[in-house]
Amino acid sequence: MKPYIEMSIDELIAELANLKAQYKKVQAKGMHLDMSRGKPCQEQLDLSMGMMDVLDSNSDLTCEDGTDCRNYGQLTGIQEARELLGDMMENNPKDIIIYGNSSLNVMFDTISRAWTHGVMGNTPWCKLPEVKFLCPVPGYDRHFAMTEYFGIKMIPVPMTETGPDMDIVEKLVSEDETIKGIWCVPKYSNPQGISYSDNTVRRFARLKPAAPDFRIFWDNAYGVHHLYDDKQDYLIEILAECKRAGNPDLVYKFSSTSKITFPGSGIAALATSPNNMEDFLHHLRYQTIGHDKVNQLRHVRFFHDIHGIVEHMRRHADIIRPKFEIVENTLARDIGDLQIGTWTKPLGGYFIMFDSLPGCAKDIVSRAKKAGVVMTGAGATWPYKKDPNDSNIRIAPTFPSCEDLQSAMDIFTLCVRISSAKKILLEKQEVKMAV
Amino acid sequence: MKPYIEMSIDELIAELANLKAQYKKVQAKGMHLDMSRGKPCQEQLDLSMGMMDVLDSNSDLTCEDGTDCRNYGQLTGIQEARELLGDMMENNPKDIIIYGNSSLNVMFDTISRAWTHGVMGNTPWCKLPEVKFLCPVPGYDRHFAMTEYFGIKMIPVPMTETGPDMDIVEKLVSEDETIKGIWCVPKYSNPQGISYSDNTVRRFARLKPAAPDFRIFWDNAYGVHHLYDDKQDYLIEILAECKRAGNPDLVYKFSSTSKITFPGSGIAALATSPNNMEDFLHHLRYQTIGHDKVNQLRHVRFFHDIHGIVEHMRRHADIIRPKFEIVENTLARDIGDLQIGTWTKPLGGYFIMFDSLPGCAKDIVSRAKKAGVVMTGAGATWPYKKDPNDSNIRIAPTFPSCEDLQSAMDIFTLCVRISSAKKILLEKQEVKMAV
Repeated sequence: MKPYIEMSIDELIAELANLKAQYKKVQAKGMHLDMSRGKPCQEQLDLSMGMMDVLDSNSDLTCEDGTDCRNYGQLTGIQEARELLGDMMENNPKDIIIYGNSSLNVMFDTISRAWTHGVMGNTPWCKLPEVKFLCPVPGYDRHFAMTEYFGIKMIPVPMTETGPDMDIVEKLVSEDETIKGIWCVPKYSNPQGISYSDNTVRRFARLKPAAPDFRIFWDNAYGVHHLYDDKQDYLIEILAECKRAGNPDLVYKFSSTSKITFPGSGIAALATSPNNMEDFLHHLRYQTIGHDKVNQLRHVRFFHDIHGIVEHMRRHADIIRPKFEIVENTLARDIGDLQIGTWTKPLGGYFIMFDSLPGCAKDIVSRAKKAGVVMTGAGATWPYKKDPNDSNIRIAPTFPSCEDLQSAMDIFTLCVRISSAKKILLEKQEVKMAV
Repeated sequence: MKPYIEMSIDELIAELANLKAQYKKVQAKGMHLDMSRGKPCQEQLDLSMGMMDVLDSNSDLTCEDGTDCRNYGQLTGIQEARELLGDMMENNPKDIIIYGNSSLNVMFDTISRAWTHGVMGNTPWCKLPEVKFLCPVPGYDRHFAMTEYFGIKMIPVPMTETGPDMDIVEKLVSEDETIKGIWCVPKYSNPQGISYSDNTVRRFARLKPAAPDFRIFWDNAYGVHHLYDDKQDYLIEILAECKRAGNPDLVYKFSSTSKITFPGSGIAALATSPNNMEDFLHHLRYQTIGHDKVNQLRHVRFFHDIHGIVEHMRRHADIIRPKFEIVENTLARDIGDLQIGTWTKPLGGYFIMFDSLPGCAKDIVSRAKKAGVVMTGAGATWPYKKDPNDSNIRIAPTFPSCEDLQSAMDIFTLCVRISSAKKILLEKQEVKMAV
């Protein structure tokens, strides 16, 4: 089929009639398919059921250093878990704190701490007239939501194929001392699935912020979440790069096993410089006596070492790779030639990003919903949920079964075509009227 | 032996010489005994090892409502856990949120939320020139530490045998709108082990605070932690009492299984009114996607119901009751007649409170330490660690073995006697000089 833009008004009217007939048929099926969140599917969760067997009532829950995991204490987490996550995050175990089940919670607490007590002796953000964060866009909705919740002003920075536009980041960060942070999902980014280039990471490590309490919030959520054995992105390790660049305290790096073991019952981790670590621990000491060490031990005994994690992630990939391929194949099949959208082809992570014609995203998501397919809300990938182009849609393929996903994608591409054809038709009709 | 105060100077000198000789012998043994924290002992932890067996790789980790505990979601906790903790806390499950492993963390987050965003639409505390909390004394050091950390001014209120002095509480709370909270450990209190009387709870529920965002922080940490089957304290349930009094939003009630299952890997809970709940959840939604539901399920499957918890607590009591008795018997044996100290005889909880002669507590704790016995720091039970009488010492009998505890208490009473004899001797000598 030829691109919609090259079709005549009559051709478009015919195409729309055809598409709408299909849509009515689909709607009549009364489907309920949820593609809104980046949730692992049941088969993925089943991969970690062995974790329920590694500890039983005969197990010795004592760490190598003699810590009884069942009792109070060990604010930084057990040494074995710091070592395992250290290998996963490519950081020194001594630079790591192991937390509870949610890295999102660690990020939230980090902002909250800066708000109430300030960063490394600087003025608490609650005492400042204005606090701003840079937000590479499109980005992760939960980052933006918590930033907005604190009343932090969000400044969008465009994402490129190699990461955030570093010319803009460097300029803004060096000029404006009210800019206190930037959100990054540096590997298999949410929602693009792209990874920051070596040059981007190098430039991040060499930022010269006007604010002494500016920090990079480096949410490396998908560090080991490859889809392929042979094609994998590699990310320069940011802490080491910051240290080499003479900026050791510039970054907070977050990670977790949420999409490795169980999303609700994994372990989260922070890696940062000794100075930042001291800052975190000073706060944490008042907040809790320690996180769940038994669950930390459970993870260590299940994986043994980083090789165990890598092999485990290959099994995840085997389950979700076909789903990514269904999305990509369906997009290529149904709208490949029509010039009505572009999409990313990530090598890992949890998302594919789709960009429709400007002004169509909300309409597409709404049409899909009426046909029983729930997508992530249009606009969710932008601060304040305001996508200025109304074009960005996040596709989360992991949760539905392959069969459901295929049905959902069939509906999605149908909605993209209807919305796009309608837009182009209207434009052509307006041009004709004007002539 | 007659009371020290009735001894002559010569008698006291002889007594001191005798005590110091004993002390030297003890010191020579080079013991290391830790009675500083309210930690369960290993035998207590072993009681919950069965919890490691209730889930294995063949278990169905699905809740009754279909929630897969392994995946994201369920911000308020799983329904089964809300019901179990509801029975334990004597609250409606719908008024309960189940959190992660630490109720201390929930309390901290509650203050932090009030600090950054305010309570139910009121001004965030960070925007106020002064925020004060009432602190019944002696009290729990970690409460005071976090309050101090936020720069909240702490006002001590004396504890009586029936709870905080309510005349003072009522007066201060109704007159001063900068008073935003009060810390309560209402049952088997830390460190006294006393429980608030019916009248005290009734008066709490009927407070008329000047501040609309005043809240009672009701840390019911020892609600089911009885030492005896036949002698148990009963506490009026505060949420229901507040509702009856027309003050439904007055209280935040905290609890956890930290000293029921594993201190590091239990589940914490909040019970509060629907209005407060909405306030909590609004915040929590940005903070996390949910807490560890697998661990919640593990607790439910281990205990089945409240009767399971009650039976389990009887087994705890069987282990720690003899320890409380060692403390009380040793105190009675060694200093019962000497009029140099008083102590509480709790029916539950984790602590016994000892009050020495004024000005002796620091000296006693320091002497004990030099003989190898680490007690909770003198002053720890007071805001800013300043005990104006220097008399209060918290005794935590649960962690050491009975044998170690007996040794530690032998040393403790020896130190109390030395310190007291010395003080009385000095006073008598001064009086003699003056005459």
